[in-house]
Amino acid sequence: MNETLLMIPGPTRVAPRVLKAMSENIVNHRSALFGKILTETTQMMSDVFRTSNKSYLITGSGTAAMEAAMANIIQPGDKILSVVGGKFGQRFMQIVDAFGGEPESIEVEWGEAVNPQEIKNYLDNNPDIKAVTVVHNETSTGVANPIKEIGKIMQDYDALYVVDTVSSLGGDEVDVDGYGIDICVTGSQKCLAAPPGMAAITLSDDAWEIVDQIEPQSYYLNLKKYRKSGNAEPPETPYTPSVSLMYAMHEALNVIMEEGLNQRVKRHQLAAKATRNAIKALNLELFPKEEVSSTTVTAINIPEGVTDAELRGTMRNKYHVELAGGQDHLKGNVFRIGHMGNITHRELITTISALEMTLRELGFEIEMGEGVASVADVYLPENL
Amino acid sequence: MNETLLMIPGPTRVAPRVLKAMSENIVNHRSALFGKILTETTQMMSDVFRTSNKSYLITGSGTAAMEAAMANIIQPGDKILSVVGGKFGQRFMQIVDAFGGEPESIEVEWGEAVNPQEIKNYLDNNPDIKAVTVVHNETSTGVANPIKEIGKIMQDYDALYVVDTVSSLGGDEVDVDGYGIDICVTGSQKCLAAPPGMAAITLSDDAWEIVDQIEPQSYYLNLKKYRKSGNAEPPETPYTPSVSLMYAMHEALNVIMEEGLNQRVKRHQLAAKATRNAIKALNLELFPKEEVSSTTVTAINIPEGVTDAELRGTMRNKYHVELAGGQDHLKGNVFRIGHMGNITHRELITTISALEMTLRELGFEIEMGEGVASVADVYLPENL
Repeated sequence: MNETLLMIPGPTRVAPRVLKAMSENIVNHRSALFGKILTETTQMMSDVFRTSNKSYLITGSGTAAMEAAMANIIQPGDKILSVVGGKFGQRFMQIVDAFGGEPESIEVEWGEAVNPQEIKNYLDNNPDIKAVTVVHNETSTGVANPIKEIGKIMQDYDALYVVDTVSSLGGDEVDVDGYGIDICVTGSQKCLAAPPGMAAITLSDDAWEIVDQIEPQSYYLNLKKYRKSGNAEPPETPYTPSVSLMYAMHEALNVIMEEGLNQRVKRHQLAAKATRNAIKALNLELFPKEEVSSTTVTAINIPEGVTDAELRGTMRNKYHVELAGGQDHLKGNVFRIGHMGNITHRELITTISALEMTLRELGFEIEMGEGVASVADVYLPENL
Repeated sequence: MNETLLMIPGPTRVAPRVLKAMSENIVNHRSALFGKILTETTQMMSDVFRTSNKSYLITGSGTAAMEAAMANIIQPGDKILSVVGGKFGQRFMQIVDAFGGEPESIEVEWGEAVNPQEIKNYLDNNPDIKAVTVVHNETSTGVANPIKEIGKIMQDYDALYVVDTVSSLGGDEVDVDGYGIDICVTGSQKCLAAPPGMAAITLSDDAWEIVDQIEPQSYYLNLKKYRKSGNAEPPETPYTPSVSLMYAMHEALNVIMEEGLNQRVKRHQLAAKATRNAIKALNLELFPKEEVSSTTVTAINIPEGVTDAELRGTMRNKYHVELAGGQDHLKGNVFRIGHMGNITHRELITTISALEMTLRELGFEIEMGEGVASVADVYLPENL
């Protein structure tokens, strides 16, 4: 039994009814019964993406979907521009490289968001860019990039607009059709609050046109096969999918539909605001600039005089709240509070109270209650 | 609720205790707690492979593991020899092609096994073959290839010996170290009787030497990253794994360890014999040659005068037993009974009795009880 409260930027806490859905008997993945579940799940997935295009579910992590996006559009030598302001922006470049593309980048200081104008300038000077990749929510730095504004720029260029919404979809505002996104990918275990192991991808007509022109450098992630199988009667996946995870996605998406997507985003925005307010009340420092800070994860500088191990170790071992550390060069310098998925006032109060006690125990002069009061304040009816 | 008895060659019926393991709360995949589960699961996986080498678990289908095997050893132009006697032998060639390798093949008539001598002859005439792929159990035709005998031949050649045991491991005899297999892959949802969505791979030192020489044409399936993360403390996976499926694999492997691998293989051999005997008793015809027929799936010619839809439809809709159809050019010509995973006398009696009733209903002159008697006969204590 594990009762630790997961406040990391994925995997997130999964609701009992979603966990329970996984214990349903396995069915034949090539049957009308499964076809119905697949159809409903992919339709809800498209609704959450806010697209009229079909979505496809891939058994694999969000990285598998990022790879699917690249493996199906890159031919050797193709130039792909990636906005890089954190670990996941870098990952896109590494994937481009693995498939023989030429990775180019706009480097953004970690903790800042890209200025859309930079993308415009880059494309003006490099008309042969085949696609631009943007990580909506850079999980590693707690920064949200302005994908809506970038979309307005991208509509003037031929380059495909590829957006990673792994840690934002279902928690922050994403409108695939509205923003003109050509390829959008996400993962199950973040704001969608399903267990990890499933990824989703959706493609515009423009994207399919490119996909149809090339031979993908992958068999497992060949999107043309996903499209063909998805159009079969009954609809299926090209290779055996994780039936149990499909049940879980189906139920997790049901939960999202019941809550309503707008309401869900508002709930995440509140959680982000409450977390930031509490952090400031405890005299801690946000890592990213506040105006670009994420709706789903807050990165915080580790205060002087305490180590990451002490801080997160105390939180975990004494108060049973699991936070995330920093990644790559931020390791040891920041810690991160994930507030994505099924996060309400209750989980934040628990987390911030545990943080207050941890800081006090580690020798900080904390005014007990300041943090939790800041959380509560955001949720007071008169402030909603 | 779905109470249909799955008698297909994967996914197979999952035991309640394994389904239940999936409903455990999700934990941080980068934690000591998960590291312990991962370590135990991969160790048991190696035990089932019968190898002293490490195993790696990949969130994805068995096809993802086949792709991992190829993407990590192929450089453009490399010649890979595949034994092709069914759909999955073909799949290896398609994967080789996707990664720019030169697929070569030994074509074996569907329903027959490869003669190991043919592989020897091929390698003698083509010393530049980099690897040989063999599908142990060709799920599409119900044929088992002689991987032990092929292993004896392969030890005289430099080419890597790559074996797909997706539908045999845990049900038929596989001894990775004993047979000198360099790369062995399998899937969760067949004889291991875990839910679909996880695959496993293990590599010999010789295989790693090749892997270390090249840049893999995949990021998600970069095995060097799996090795590095597996050696971390605590051990982890390079990308977010399906935590719930790892729980399931852990429990499914526990079940296998409790039963004992030898006993489990014997149980599958009995099930195969019982199925074949029943088929013959009912005057149906095995599709493959009996002496090479699979221990885990039996392919049967659809008798004249009845369609696949009538036969399997009646089995499914009236008797709630799900059988598999044929694949590719065997579609409509054969049906298949999977007897892999948690299959005992009970499931076979149910299946064969339903088959008797179905055949009678479809107009065949069936001596009711002949089939089930043949099943029971195999399980009589004096015949064990």
